[in-house]
Amino acid sequence: MAPVRFPRHLKPIEPQGAQLLAQERAKASFDPQALATSLYGEALLKKQDEILAILEKDPVLGDKSHRYYVGRDVRFKRSLAAAKRMVELVKIHRWNDEELKIADRLFDESGPFRLHRSMFMPTLENQGTDEQKKLYLEPARRYEIIGCYAQTELGHGSNVRGLETTATYDPSTQTFDLHSPTLTASKWWIGGLGVAANHAVVMARLISNGKDYGPHPFVVQIRDLKTHEPLKGVTVGDIGPKFGFNTVDNGFILFDHLKLPHVAMLARFSKVDKVTGEYQRPPNDKLAYGTMVFVRANIVMESSYVLARAATVAVRYSALRAQFVDEANPKKALVQGQTKVVETPVLDYMMQQYRLFPVLAQAYACHFTAQEMHRMYYENQAKMAAGDFSYLADLHASSSGLKSLTTTLNMAGLEDCRRACGGHGYSLFSGLGQFYQDMLPKATWEGDNYLLTQQTTRYLLKTFRAVQAGSQGRATFSSSYMQEYLAQPTAKCPASQPSDWTNPEVLLSTFKYRVAFLVDKAVQAIDVHQQTWNDMLVEVYRISRAHCQLLLVANFFSAVFGKDKQSNEDKVLQRLAILFALSTLEAEMADVLTCGYVSPDQALLVKKQTIAALKAIRPDAVALVDVFGYPDYLMQSALGDKDGRAYERMTEMAELEPLNQNTVADGYEEYIRPLIHAGQGAWKVGKDGAARL
Amino acid sequence: MAPVRFPRHLKPIEPQGAQLLAQERAKASFDPQALATSLYGEALLKKQDEILAILEKDPVLGDKSHRYYVGRDVRFKRSLAAAKRMVELVKIHRWNDEELKIADRLFDESGPFRLHRSMFMPTLENQGTDEQKKLYLEPARRYEIIGCYAQTELGHGSNVRGLETTATYDPSTQTFDLHSPTLTASKWWIGGLGVAANHAVVMARLISNGKDYGPHPFVVQIRDLKTHEPLKGVTVGDIGPKFGFNTVDNGFILFDHLKLPHVAMLARFSKVDKVTGEYQRPPNDKLAYGTMVFVRANIVMESSYVLARAATVAVRYSALRAQFVDEANPKKALVQGQTKVVETPVLDYMMQQYRLFPVLAQAYACHFTAQEMHRMYYENQAKMAAGDFSYLADLHASSSGLKSLTTTLNMAGLEDCRRACGGHGYSLFSGLGQFYQDMLPKATWEGDNYLLTQQTTRYLLKTFRAVQAGSQGRATFSSSYMQEYLAQPTAKCPASQPSDWTNPEVLLSTFKYRVAFLVDKAVQAIDVHQQTWNDMLVEVYRISRAHCQLLLVANFFSAVFGKDKQSNEDKVLQRLAILFALSTLEAEMADVLTCGYVSPDQALLVKKQTIAALKAIRPDAVALVDVFGYPDYLMQSALGDKDGRAYERMTEMAELEPLNQNTVADGYEEYIRPLIHAGQGAWKVGKDGAARL
Repeated sequence: MAPVRFPRHLKPIEPQGAQLLAQERAKASFDPQALATSLYGEALLKKQDEILAILEKDPVLGDKSHRYYVGRDVRFKRSLAAAKRMVELVKIHRWNDEELKIADRLFDESGPFRLHRSMFMPTLENQGTDEQKKLYLEPARRYEIIGCYAQTELGHGSNVRGLETTATYDPSTQTFDLHSPTLTASKWWIGGLGVAANHAVVMARLISNGKDYGPHPFVVQIRDLKTHEPLKGVTVGDIGPKFGFNTVDNGFILFDHLKLPHVAMLARFSKVDKVTGEYQRPPNDKLAYGTMVFVRANIVMESSYVLARAATVAVRYSALRAQFVDEANPKKALVQGQTKVVETPVLDYMMQQYRLFPVLAQAYACHFTAQEMHRMYYENQAKMAAGDFSYLADLHASSSGLKSLTTTLNMAGLEDCRRACGGHGYSLFSGLGQFYQDMLPKATWEGDNYLLTQQTTRYLLKTFRAVQAGSQGRATFSSSYMQEYLAQPTAKCPASQPSDWTNPEVLLSTFKYRVAFLVDKAVQAIDVHQQTWNDMLVEVYRISRAHCQLLLVANFFSAVFGKDKQSNEDKVLQRLAILFALSTLEAEMADVLTCGYVSPDQALLVKKQTIAALKAIRPDAVALVDVFGYPDYLMQSALGDKDGRAYERMTEMAELEPLNQNTVADGYEEYIRPLIHAGQGAWKVGKDGAARL
Repeated sequence: MAPVRFPRHLKPIEPQGAQLLAQERAKASFDPQALATSLYGEALLKKQDEILAILEKDPVLGDKSHRYYVGRDVRFKRSLAAAKRMVELVKIHRWNDEELKIADRLFDESGPFRLHRSMFMPTLENQGTDEQKKLYLEPARRYEIIGCYAQTELGHGSNVRGLETTATYDPSTQTFDLHSPTLTASKWWIGGLGVAANHAVVMARLISNGKDYGPHPFVVQIRDLKTHEPLKGVTVGDIGPKFGFNTVDNGFILFDHLKLPHVAMLARFSKVDKVTGEYQRPPNDKLAYGTMVFVRANIVMESSYVLARAATVAVRYSALRAQFVDEANPKKALVQGQTKVVETPVLDYMMQQYRLFPVLAQAYACHFTAQEMHRMYYENQAKMAAGDFSYLADLHASSSGLKSLTTTLNMAGLEDCRRACGGHGYSLFSGLGQFYQDMLPKATWEGDNYLLTQQTTRYLLKTFRAVQAGSQGRATFSSSYMQEYLAQPTAKCPASQPSDWTNPEVLLSTFKYRVAFLVDKAVQAIDVHQQTWNDMLVEVYRISRAHCQLLLVANFFSAVFGKDKQSNEDKVLQRLAILFALSTLEAEMADVLTCGYVSPDQALLVKKQTIAALKAIRPDAVALVDVFGYPDYLMQSALGDKDGRAYERMTEMAELEPLNQNTVADGYEEYIRPLIHAGQGAWKVGKDGAARL
């Protein structure tokens, strides 16, 4: 049993990655550390370093090296071990929620207690009475009960009203009868349910006195606390392998007339009278929309992280991966002491810049919009507390569309970056394959990315009609740009040379006109031409996207432009903001041209200026991904290695491949030898080099 | 140890999938069997059925059920077993190459002998002398030697001239010295090399008499034929886990001054004199381009299969997956004997049609273009045999761009279809997750999808200059549309109402004008404004894509329109062809508007007509995927189940999940119990339903 080992004396071809990345860093126009501090704050960066140091040397969480090799069975069991260890670390280091979140992000693997923390406990907190909190939440905080959140069913996802599971109240026994009438009523996709949870918040249609009141939340014990066996009346298990996220035990559960005590129904808002079974309606639920805004602001911030991480890997690797010689601009480097023409780093090729730099710019764009959403969330919470609900609708509509747009950008950006790493992007050692797989559910959870846009566009159409009718109340961002459009519906873009497209005002008005025009046309189609909503769905999606692209551009611009913004860090952000606007505009040129605001000649100028904007980013590209500060421990990426050791790490990681633990791999005797020898004698190699019998 | 089992008496909610799919099939406007026969031919369909029957009942190849659950170790070993079994079946049933190809497609898993068949043997066949064929090819055919094709290196992919591995000829010993000077010279990604192969064709830079003649192919024995141990001077192993394709042992190999006999260099074209070491140049290599065209025609045909399979899953599942009630058009169905309003199948929603039907249309588009490419390949071979090389350049340029475009469509279409299956698309049981992962390398191999477009566009620019100068020889498809454009460079699209966009001529001229305009601008930019090629790369990519979209539209139209095309099968293909053209045009509207041929108002008509074209496909959607004839054995997809048993199969497949083989999963004792019990006594459940100590 001799393992496969690479020859230790061999080095990569010169110039090596370390040298190339050092050159890139030396030519940056700004200080990445200063920019990182201004973006994330010194306190957070310091805390992150502290927690990283703890995790890296932890006996359970410090070693992630198994992740790319083992099957789901092994990965899941190690994920359970990690989940337990994380609970211990929280106690040892007295981490608060924010610190645990940092640790989770650095550890970078969703585990079986994820939903216990992110959904089970918050639901008890928000919707439980004091009695229920005492019963369920307190032991949950100590992990003495472990919960999950069971809403989605095998046959029912986004349409909560279509759920089949029922909870029928019987006043005579003061119990609910929890029941799954069909196979499709099986709860499905429930994180933490397959293996770990012994409790669940179950969404079931409440039926009392023969009337169906729709879905309500119930706390249900599902497994025995001594043996962990499913309770009688409960069928529960894991839903099986997924495209990603296989360290979480997404589960299914069916109930066969399971009896629940009256206290099981979470009763802070709606309730059923214990004796009469009479139903009491919930108060105004606008407060819940506030929470959704907060959750979505976090998703937009996470989108920034995802794009940043993908760009980090692809930009670093592209700076050291060389291919062909660009004859018009040959690359020279020091090779064994002599300056020679060498192959050109692929990052110098325009197509590579066109693929990667917009993703880099998107990462920054999402950052500033998430910040603004957080600000608006707190502003809105304060207003609502003071009885002013006028900020809510606009904020909720924008947050829906932004969740959809930014997570869609995530998936596209991640795959683009992975593919832009060429063949090696396909190796798991790139660090982008499993990452892509794990990020995908974001497009579906917290609101399906297509369905969500209906909420955004419905609001925009309503606003447009109000502005048109002069019945709009307080001016909002949306109503203002519609007002501008209605004042001058045949306005034309003033750009006459490429550099006009670096003027933030010119860019912003183009994005504004585009949305207002699309909304105007849609209102006409529905109100005048009587188009059905179904026939409008494609436009509805486009309108939401257009509005949210405008928001991203507007927030980016207002964060980085201004009289006092003159530092090198400000300037590089300004170049990025212009690139973000231009590359978005170029991708959406069909809309902009169709609305007639921009002429074909002006569109050609946009193309030209986009190329110029890419070139302006090139010298700072590596420094701009360094700003994100992703440690190698987090990324587990050979290609994105901070020190440019991409090729060395590819070989180091290949040595860990189980098939390489013996020079003759398992399976040879059984499946290869019989073919080669095929009942004949052994082979001999002749003097001519060919093998013969 | 009691396994988790779903209650056997539960059925899915009504109307069930089987009923819904039957309704869809009943309302089709054409006969799917008739269309399938006309597309694929009766002989092929019959052969496919015969081979399917053999595979389904085969003890080794019949059961694919492990594929979604096990880690790479188990999957690879089973893949080895399958590879051996396939070799046996070929012998037993005397399958020819075409039949083996059908079997491979049905079995649907690349294995360790894949490259032995697709690259090692063909290379020996094409580039070996008779002596070399006798030495290597004959035993290879009997699987007594197993080979691979080692070209790509860790640091070098597309640029073959950059390869570092050298083969230095020494006339005194009449041997080549095969050597890997650096770590990046390691051959990498070589299919079949990691575990299985004992021989390789190695591409290495030939050096003789001190001169470097660039990369040439050498046949190299790499493992001992008795023990399978690597030979001295050889370091060989598996490159580790990949995003997909993990049933293949992609490997690496390094050579430390390995001596090869003179016969090792494949010498049909170039050779080195045994005694003097003098190099003899190869003859004209145009014939090799012919082969590339053939390989790429096959890739376009495979692209059709990929898109067809993705569409099959997503369309079938969307026909039975219901969500919300579309109030404007409520769905009614028989539920327990009564007609009731039920949730609307998602396939009725316009957004779903907009996402799926273009993919369906692309599958057909690729089919007809692949057919035309095959026809042109044979035409060109005949011409070349007669000394006429005038067809080659056009064909080669188009085939490069088409390979890039259709495999790019593949990846996008597959992911679109997977995501359009909602949450369940993320389950591996959708059958689309692993499939996506396994298909991705197509974007990189046989020519990187970005690099390839440079070949296409270079040819188009050259053609344009020739047409402009009047020096173009024989008229080709490309030169003809450029001629038309140059004759009327300011032509305008004549469409004035939505239905004008169903006129094939109107659509075709729009696609033609667009390419010619883009080419014209690019020629100006380079020839007049002295833009560098690097700065033009984004346009270069666009031009190739535009040209190949035109080819797809033109080939589709010419296959399905015509006076004699009046059957129901013809008509549904015509509707699909129009949809393909419209949805492509709509996606590329930025180009079309920028070139000024189409006005903003006409663009609005395109949008409108696209919606109408989608509606026209809706009644035939399920029948159109049935035409592809994908058996459940091939697809392994719960959602795409032919009989609509999507939900039943999701639960059946979940029962096979290893975590479900005991109601209390492995890991509980070690990682969950200690938390729940936390050093305290066991739990009791009180009368109030809550668990307490």
